[in-house]
Amino acid sequence: MNAPTALAHLNPEIHQREVPATLLDGLRQRFGAQLSTAQAVREQHGRDESVYDVPPPAAVVFAQSTQDVAEAVALAAAHKVPVIPFGVGSSLEGHLLAVQGGISIDVSRMNAVLSINAEDLTVTVQPGVTRKAVNEAVKSEGLFFPIDPGADASIGGMAATRASGTNAVRYGTMRENVLALEVVTASGEVIRTGTRARKSSAGYDLTRLMVGSEGTLGVITEVTLKLYPLPEAISAATCSFPSIEAAVRTTIQIIQMGIPIARCELIDAGTVRMVNTHSKLGLREEHMLLMEFHGSPASVKEQAETVQEIASEFGGNAFEWATTPEERTRLWTARHNAYFAAIQSKPGCRAVSTDTCVPISRLADCLLDSVAEADASGLPYFLVGHVGDGNFHFGYLIDTAKPEERHVAETLNNQLVARALSLEGTCTGEHGVGLHKMDFLLAEAGSGAVDMMRTIKRALDPDNIMNPGKIFTI
Amino acid sequence: MNAPTALAHLNPEIHQREVPATLLDGLRQRFGAQLSTAQAVREQHGRDESVYDVPPPAAVVFAQSTQDVAEAVALAAAHKVPVIPFGVGSSLEGHLLAVQGGISIDVSRMNAVLSINAEDLTVTVQPGVTRKAVNEAVKSEGLFFPIDPGADASIGGMAATRASGTNAVRYGTMRENVLALEVVTASGEVIRTGTRARKSSAGYDLTRLMVGSEGTLGVITEVTLKLYPLPEAISAATCSFPSIEAAVRTTIQIIQMGIPIARCELIDAGTVRMVNTHSKLGLREEHMLLMEFHGSPASVKEQAETVQEIASEFGGNAFEWATTPEERTRLWTARHNAYFAAIQSKPGCRAVSTDTCVPISRLADCLLDSVAEADASGLPYFLVGHVGDGNFHFGYLIDTAKPEERHVAETLNNQLVARALSLEGTCTGEHGVGLHKMDFLLAEAGSGAVDMMRTIKRALDPDNIMNPGKIFTI
Repeated sequence: MNAPTALAHLNPEIHQREVPATLLDGLRQRFGAQLSTAQAVREQHGRDESVYDVPPPAAVVFAQSTQDVAEAVALAAAHKVPVIPFGVGSSLEGHLLAVQGGISIDVSRMNAVLSINAEDLTVTVQPGVTRKAVNEAVKSEGLFFPIDPGADASIGGMAATRASGTNAVRYGTMRENVLALEVVTASGEVIRTGTRARKSSAGYDLTRLMVGSEGTLGVITEVTLKLYPLPEAISAATCSFPSIEAAVRTTIQIIQMGIPIARCELIDAGTVRMVNTHSKLGLREEHMLLMEFHGSPASVKEQAETVQEIASEFGGNAFEWATTPEERTRLWTARHNAYFAAIQSKPGCRAVSTDTCVPISRLADCLLDSVAEADASGLPYFLVGHVGDGNFHFGYLIDTAKPEERHVAETLNNQLVARALSLEGTCTGEHGVGLHKMDFLLAEAGSGAVDMMRTIKRALDPDNIMNPGKIFTI
Repeated sequence: MNAPTALAHLNPEIHQREVPATLLDGLRQRFGAQLSTAQAVREQHGRDESVYDVPPPAAVVFAQSTQDVAEAVALAAAHKVPVIPFGVGSSLEGHLLAVQGGISIDVSRMNAVLSINAEDLTVTVQPGVTRKAVNEAVKSEGLFFPIDPGADASIGGMAATRASGTNAVRYGTMRENVLALEVVTASGEVIRTGTRARKSSAGYDLTRLMVGSEGTLGVITEVTLKLYPLPEAISAATCSFPSIEAAVRTTIQIIQMGIPIARCELIDAGTVRMVNTHSKLGLREEHMLLMEFHGSPASVKEQAETVQEIASEFGGNAFEWATTPEERTRLWTARHNAYFAAIQSKPGCRAVSTDTCVPISRLADCLLDSVAEADASGLPYFLVGHVGDGNFHFGYLIDTAKPEERHVAETLNNQLVARALSLEGTCTGEHGVGLHKMDFLLAEAGSGAVDMMRTIKRALDPDNIMNPGKIFTI
């Protein structure tokens, strides 16, 4: 096991806090069959999609209501025992790992869509509802929820990590699309933040303080989201380019012209190859942009024509279209499976994912230098990007049994983050800090800002029980 | 003077803290001619556009740099003396009033546009730059900054109050359009929040915690804003309706269809009359929507045609167009001057402004009942609304020498806020809480959420020196 070593390096203060038998007894008494201390269940709740394996939580509470969450937190608080919220386990930065022990609160059974307000374009859901379930529930109203991080993540988890994904270039991220929350605080109190009004100046923006707080300030128990009318017309197209730079320059021009493109994704040639193999597609194995246009039929046509013109200027080929829903689904599923396609290309490997995001004018610089470094390293990798936002992911494929491969991957990521920060970007566009990016956060935000975060954390969670050891050390 | 009585009612803990001579000496030594203790200057800095008059600050520091702000705050902090940031003085809720004494830090001389990044659609400005100055500076790049609260407010002040205005229906508010900040904290430390990347999941969203914090957590000394490409085509139109309800129903339909309308403003017939008199216009003196469409020529045409169809269904008249920039400017200037038009309609009066915002499906209910109440009260009023967002303003015109008129206005506002909250709305869409809405905030957010705000405030400003007595009492 290399992981604990790597973690110890990242966070020397890791220690397991004791979970006393009295707490487990209290939880068992309150929750009965909703409590599990089975090894397999605990292990499943102590990991995510990251490369880390660490000690699992001491117990898992399967909450079925806000009241359940509040009482579980209150019990844990009484014993100063850590609490880690769990949705579907698709996060990438070690968010779910019980690095200081404690209990996991699994909210996946809190999966009710509580109310759909089609006239207001809002929906209120419990945190365990996944993004696909939201879309299933609102489809018949002619509405959709655009935030799409790839995985069928839980809405609570997406809020907690400030997730975004392929549609963010047009529709924003969870930051822009969460209207209101219900949250269980560190003392087990239930509060509400925000209302269903589209805007408000009523005091501190607690909603956005909670969005992206990675479970360190409270457990999200209800989320009100913005919805959007299903576009009258949707067309997806792929366009191959002679170089990554040409694809990036095209993207920059699209954004600068204010074209309301709904998706604008880069996939490099190597990754297209992996995707073709995995999803049995016949995409041209060149660097490509995968794009989607939403609007009225006339507007979609106009957008596509303008983008095709721009692309041609930079040497892009004629668009290949996916117009039927089935073709589009196939294409985007293939895109979302790039991660798995890559994993399968090197049996037994895991991926160290990067997540930098830079101002779009810096995107070519940031990407091209990092591609050169990755190529020189000899590590296989995939490269996909929400390039319309300046956000992209390398996934360096490593054999976790080979510390030297992890070292190379971490070094590449360090270089990439340093480059992104020097270009006025961020170390994480959408995955969050978790365990992996604490040093990067400090480099990015500076000690003054991180100290302000710590001060807020200490004030709202004086015993440091809410997902401790994530984002920063206390 | 009725104001102190009204304020005492709102905030019984008001007290003037002592500003010791040693602090004034220290400020004088450091700031020389940048410090003023002249009565007229102090009075100008102790009021805003609200109906309150209270004791002014003891001194005004005209800051010219972040360093100036940091040192002024550090000096004040050493004496535990309040600090109130001042931009152009256009806020509406008593934000600038020195209710606990202290010093005003005027940032209006910090009016440099620091960098325009046309490729990234961002601009970084000092806080004293006004929104019109931003637009002037970026126009030649083919860009604009859409947030338009009417007044030519300072960007720092707009960030501090989470301002929005007529374009928010399409472009969002300051919440969505501030990318990064530089802030002087309560101890005089300078921190940075956010980067120029369009999105980030790097730790707590300090940017959005500061946006809307009304100077109670720090002084904003630098703001990075999103910009937008100037639309290829812009058309503005007015459309008269037989009833407010018809105008509102039209608006609801526009939003629900996802038409990307850029502005959608309601003006009631009485207010149109005031505007005609004040701005010498010949608008039909009926309830009307004032709309603006942005996009390509084809898209603007398509949007306008669809909206005209919807409006006709609800009995709206044929659009009257303002297509040249001059006509449009004249129309929007008249809209922005509705406040002054109303004030002039009743010589010597002041306006008590309301600011509720509700989910759009509740807008008709909220508005119509409130119109009936206002009509029954006998007080003259104006009524304008950013109805695309569910936000509207009554301005009850009162003679401040007549306490009974103020009482009627406050009662109407109380009823309106209670109604908006019962309809899942907010007491303030864009003006902020300031002094006037502390009780409303408590009713809206609940004591749990307001306590969380207080806890954050106490942690970040333990001596309560940053604009104390605003948003909530400590």
